[in-house]
Amino acid sequence: MGLNPADERLAARLPQGVLREAAPAYLEEPRGRYRGQAGLVAAPRDTEEAAAVIRACAEAGVAVVPRGGGTGLVGGQVMPEGPVPLLLSLERMRAIRAVHPEEGVIVAEAGATLQQVREAAAAVGRQFPLALASQGTAQIGGVLSTNAGGVNVLRYGNARAMCLGVEAVLPQGQVMHDLKRLRKDNTGYDIRDLLIGAEGTLGIITAASLVLAPVPPEVGVAMLVVESPEAALTLLSLAQARMAGGVTAFELISGQGLRFLDVAFPALRQPFADRPDWLVLIEVGLPAGLFADAALEGLFSEAAEEGLVRDGVIAQSGQQAAELWAIRETIPDANRHIGAIASHDISLPLSEIARFIRDASAMLAGMADLRINCFGHLGDGNLHFNLFPVEGKTRDAYDRVRRDLSRAVHEMVVARGGSFSAEHGVGRLKAADLAEWGDPARLGAMRAIKDALDPAGIMNPGVILNDYAKTTL
Amino acid sequence: MGLNPADERLAARLPQGVLREAAPAYLEEPRGRYRGQAGLVAAPRDTEEAAAVIRACAEAGVAVVPRGGGTGLVGGQVMPEGPVPLLLSLERMRAIRAVHPEEGVIVAEAGATLQQVREAAAAVGRQFPLALASQGTAQIGGVLSTNAGGVNVLRYGNARAMCLGVEAVLPQGQVMHDLKRLRKDNTGYDIRDLLIGAEGTLGIITAASLVLAPVPPEVGVAMLVVESPEAALTLLSLAQARMAGGVTAFELISGQGLRFLDVAFPALRQPFADRPDWLVLIEVGLPAGLFADAALEGLFSEAAEEGLVRDGVIAQSGQQAAELWAIRETIPDANRHIGAIASHDISLPLSEIARFIRDASAMLAGMADLRINCFGHLGDGNLHFNLFPVEGKTRDAYDRVRRDLSRAVHEMVVARGGSFSAEHGVGRLKAADLAEWGDPARLGAMRAIKDALDPAGIMNPGVILNDYAKTTL
Repeated sequence: MGLNPADERLAARLPQGVLREAAPAYLEEPRGRYRGQAGLVAAPRDTEEAAAVIRACAEAGVAVVPRGGGTGLVGGQVMPEGPVPLLLSLERMRAIRAVHPEEGVIVAEAGATLQQVREAAAAVGRQFPLALASQGTAQIGGVLSTNAGGVNVLRYGNARAMCLGVEAVLPQGQVMHDLKRLRKDNTGYDIRDLLIGAEGTLGIITAASLVLAPVPPEVGVAMLVVESPEAALTLLSLAQARMAGGVTAFELISGQGLRFLDVAFPALRQPFADRPDWLVLIEVGLPAGLFADAALEGLFSEAAEEGLVRDGVIAQSGQQAAELWAIRETIPDANRHIGAIASHDISLPLSEIARFIRDASAMLAGMADLRINCFGHLGDGNLHFNLFPVEGKTRDAYDRVRRDLSRAVHEMVVARGGSFSAEHGVGRLKAADLAEWGDPARLGAMRAIKDALDPAGIMNPGVILNDYAKTTL
Repeated sequence: MGLNPADERLAARLPQGVLREAAPAYLEEPRGRYRGQAGLVAAPRDTEEAAAVIRACAEAGVAVVPRGGGTGLVGGQVMPEGPVPLLLSLERMRAIRAVHPEEGVIVAEAGATLQQVREAAAAVGRQFPLALASQGTAQIGGVLSTNAGGVNVLRYGNARAMCLGVEAVLPQGQVMHDLKRLRKDNTGYDIRDLLIGAEGTLGIITAASLVLAPVPPEVGVAMLVVESPEAALTLLSLAQARMAGGVTAFELISGQGLRFLDVAFPALRQPFADRPDWLVLIEVGLPAGLFADAALEGLFSEAAEEGLVRDGVIAQSGQQAAELWAIRETIPDANRHIGAIASHDISLPLSEIARFIRDASAMLAGMADLRINCFGHLGDGNLHFNLFPVEGKTRDAYDRVRRDLSRAVHEMVVARGGSFSAEHGVGRLKAADLAEWGDPARLGAMRAIKDALDPAGIMNPGVILNDYAKTTL
């Protein structure tokens, strides 16, 4: 590698053999909004090397941008401006250190992919219940640093809820050994949960002990036609009351989404010929002794009596269940095919959701002619509320109003007690939003903690707290 | 009140009408190990008054000891030495601010008792699944500040897992408004979880939004005789595999505990005449359509086939279930009747537990003649491993060895990846243990955060971080 003098001085401080070629992929992020600056890439082989890299950067005053699988959607993995940072890739630290099936615990290094952890769990007859579209690439370190969500949060929680302990390198190069495998441990401040969701700004998670859940003896999937989001939410309450925590996913699908599928994936079989306005995909995981299809039939009967559902299909095989899931999971691809004007990863208190969908749709209709595909993890109050051009127009035609549309959506969400980033995180994309809408006392505490743990300001500057982008490293 | 000059100066800065008489109960804690110093007691009526109290103390350099129901077992609620603190009681802030049954959320002020929240949940057909012996007195603020546990952690998690948002006064008097009712919100550092479990050293929680869970349609309780802790743990795995997350409690009871019950509560009916060496109490919450006793019979049959259980009773009514629970719940009273030499609130990785019980028992037998009552929340890896005099001796006879016994237990726990405080917290009682056994990098981060958020060092000095007891307020 031909290094410039500043890079050479940093390189000389790093452990032997950790440098990698800065392939173009290291400078990209999936949405193409940001492009990183070409610089050095360090890929430590173990925790001690990771600590040595951080120490070298702290001493040299070089910013560190941690990089997992690079699948994040808010620009947390690239630093497009400011002093050229060192990229720290966890790609070589991908061991499954231990599997304890009898405890329901797996210990994985940060560079292991989510898929790898899921397979290691399956190999011992357990499950790691966090599932994401990007799981083949996303790494555990990034999954935890962004507190990733996915389709099973309703039952198993976010990434935070699945982590019992972490090993991490703090911003001055200290290694925190806290890889506990305990369900209960009340010994001081919750540093683990502070690192989870900090998006690499307070240190780097190098390994984690994670919860493995039993695989439910009975799994069932149904797709039900509902009249409205209100009916879907009442159905959710009913399902949760009947299933005793056995509802593992509850996804909302709109008629607009089904019509986008018709355009983009005409070969995909859909169960309802008339493309209903609203569908719910429900998955249940149930005890031995109760057949899943019987439980779903019982739910359907009661819901039909109460006027909540008017049609539905219950999967009669794993193949049919996969086909129903494919409808939900192909929607993001259909969206890409149509080309969104703007997408929103929002959450709301459950009782605000139906009114929000109505009010936001009406408000946006007054601002521009557009189509809305509202879908997502209804059970968690998490919607992907995405805006598309009307037929005959392209997204470019909306360039002038895009910002206003997104701002109006986010303002309405915040005013109703919701979040402008439900599961993707803040990154660089929403740092200004957080500065504007975050509670001042909470932001003050965040800044005080950032200053205290990372006095040199080297860890992923500009992410979450945007004032740190301007530090003079 | 006749105040000394220093108290008068502080009193003059406080909001009108917040001062209370310092009744003796404010200076006590349940175990009688510590006695607080007589001083002023402030009881704010709302969050603004609480903030004004903290601001006055920060300006005057007066320590603040927050007080909920006062049921904590580690001395976090009294300050026996150092400059006389102000006691801040949340007793007047006990409103249930809102109940959202359709969302599964309740918003309660910190001074509401756990019982009050449980009753408000029951009134709308839901449950708040945190249950403690002291729930009639323990307040939500203290429950969260200590991240309390209880018997349903296995299914519902600790207090932390049941909290969606907090309103809090930070140590310089800033009010943090973060009473979210969201299941997903990835907008920056997890300040909420930092305050939860901080035992009042980083601020005061004034209100919280808490999760209400559905009441399972079917609830069942059984008491099963197992050969050993190993068999109990294999039974736990089997139960969890069969019940798809429906095991809501899994408690271990020892023969020693049953014999203590015979002595202290001879009228209490026990289901097994021969007082087996080990019992398990299992509770399940199941979906509609599966009878709980059928599910428990299915478990019993499979467990018997595998040689894990040799006898058992399944409750046939709510009354019988309550009788089985009474056996478990009377054990702490029986322990008090016998008089413990030392008690230990420990947790271990599940796969270490059986070996620990054997090894620790053997080790202690070599140190003193004693009886061990080992019981507790086996499903969480949380044991109460309590030591008692042999018959004919009193606890005083063990005064010389008490410290050595506890130290030996804790050292073995820590060496095996366990925790010396599973659910009670650190308080003042275990602050030196944390300083000794805590990971240095984690302790460093805790100190940096304490200094950053509470630069004057006024919040509950001496709790968790013992070096803060020595600050010169």
